[in-house]
Amino acid sequence: MKFLRVGPAGAERPVVLDTDGRPRDLSRLASDIDGRFLSGDGVERTRAALAADELPPIELRGQRIGAPVARPGKVVCIGLNYSDHAAETATPVPGEPVVFMKAANTVIGPDDTVLIPRTSVKTDYEIELAVIIGRTARYLDSPEDSDAVIAGYTIADDVSERAFQHERGGQWDKGKSCETFNPLGPWLVTPDEVGDPQALGMRLWVNGELRQDGHTKNMVFGARHLVWYLSQFMVLEPGDVINTGTPAGVAFGANDFPYLRPGDVVEAEIDRLGRQRHTLGRA
Amino acid sequence: MKFLRVGPAGAERPVVLDTDGRPRDLSRLASDIDGRFLSGDGVERTRAALAADELPPIELRGQRIGAPVARPGKVVCIGLNYSDHAAETATPVPGEPVVFMKAANTVIGPDDTVLIPRTSVKTDYEIELAVIIGRTARYLDSPEDSDAVIAGYTIADDVSERAFQHERGGQWDKGKSCETFNPLGPWLVTPDEVGDPQALGMRLWVNGELRQDGHTKNMVFGARHLVWYLSQFMVLEPGDVINTGTPAGVAFGANDFPYLRPGDVVEAEIDRLGRQRHTLGRA
Repeated sequence: MKFLRVGPAGAERPVVLDTDGRPRDLSRLASDIDGRFLSGDGVERTRAALAADELPPIELRGQRIGAPVARPGKVVCIGLNYSDHAAETATPVPGEPVVFMKAANTVIGPDDTVLIPRTSVKTDYEIELAVIIGRTARYLDSPEDSDAVIAGYTIADDVSERAFQHERGGQWDKGKSCETFNPLGPWLVTPDEVGDPQALGMRLWVNGELRQDGHTKNMVFGARHLVWYLSQFMVLEPGDVINTGTPAGVAFGANDFPYLRPGDVVEAEIDRLGRQRHTLGRA
Repeated sequence: MKFLRVGPAGAERPVVLDTDGRPRDLSRLASDIDGRFLSGDGVERTRAALAADELPPIELRGQRIGAPVARPGKVVCIGLNYSDHAAETATPVPGEPVVFMKAANTVIGPDDTVLIPRTSVKTDYEIELAVIIGRTARYLDSPEDSDAVIAGYTIADDVSERAFQHERGGQWDKGKSCETFNPLGPWLVTPDEVGDPQALGMRLWVNGELRQDGHTKNMVFGARHLVWYLSQFMVLEPGDVINTGTPAGVAFGANDFPYLRPGDVVEAEIDRLGRQRHTLGRA
């Protein structure tokens, strides 16, 4: 199944795409797609309601798509998790996952405007496979146990301000938490429809020019490993988002691609997870 | 005023201490002390209700104290923000604030048990002045504007696992976000009762031995500066918590104090903000 949230920011309505890709209104069954929905029996009730054809069709044309999960408790990010991206930033492939965080209020819809911070000169894009947590994960025994706590997958653009991240003292978070810096969506796709999360091609364009052309098979640490690993250091909760790292091709890398400017259009897609399209604006 | 939350975890009831320090039940006036309460007219209505003697007394004896704000959206931390702490860790005083984050679900009550992570050998304490945000802060013009968005102050123990923080690759967040790693409270004290936030003595004991004996006058960047500064990089929201850094005396420092062990008792107090007392356990 593909879950999404449709409507004005802060007033989204839950929707599911049926097996033919037609949108169905989930409002009668759930107030929202959030940690509570994912950790309860919401997904299974939706499956049953779809099978029984109980959900009314809904017209999405012209409506805004929100992030596919409401109010995530945290957004945990993995750095340097693609061998090609580590190489382009002249950084060794890490021996264990590099973990940092973004403020959870950076999450916006997949097509919402991304605001370049007021003093920014190095706003950059990063297409990432995002994991959405469905059940509490605390000291999982093994990466195989991760399947039981993953609600699904979606696309994140882990927008980053490289001067804030690297040139302003200290830790990366300063360049990761700016307003609107985490377009998420369009859909939360359940694991049964995604199949192997390490078998997904991913592409990002800026103004139509292909900048990132990667594949999740090149992740240093796969999605299941990351969920297990993080659960040794923190409690992952339903609705939490994990950005699993970006492949090569960012502006900060060796390609000398330009940083983002107001008016630029970023498109990002991952196999089976759909496509985002957001425009850059000024904060 | 001093706001607090009393009762079992997840089912706390809002309480205010009147001018004589007597607890008064706030349940009739507010469902909880959270971002919504702080950003609305909750504080002013409480003041009026206290003046009119409309709030019934409540008995707190034997009851658990929760964190003084429910479900903070984020916990932003400042590193190396006391000259004496920078010195003890052999680190230069930073030229601008060092920013990192902890998972917001680390926040627990001031006297709740802190769990040493399963593979931890270097769990450390850090007493900190915590700022609680009351109104949205986005690109504030100057540090003076911070007063309008600060709801109050409280005590945080920014518990840290130093091996996770420094020896496991990458960024500090990995050693900061473990379960129970942010005892907060006992009270949210409003700015009028705190006075100058840079004029507060602070002390932390482990098993009765004084380990940290600091003063907020030694902060490199003061509370108002930090709120203004952070608002240039992220949107601070009502209920957010800022841990403003710790003075000298941590185990990681030059004193060779031992790291925390199960059964240890940490007491932490800041002038005008009360006192925490938490015991260490095992995760």
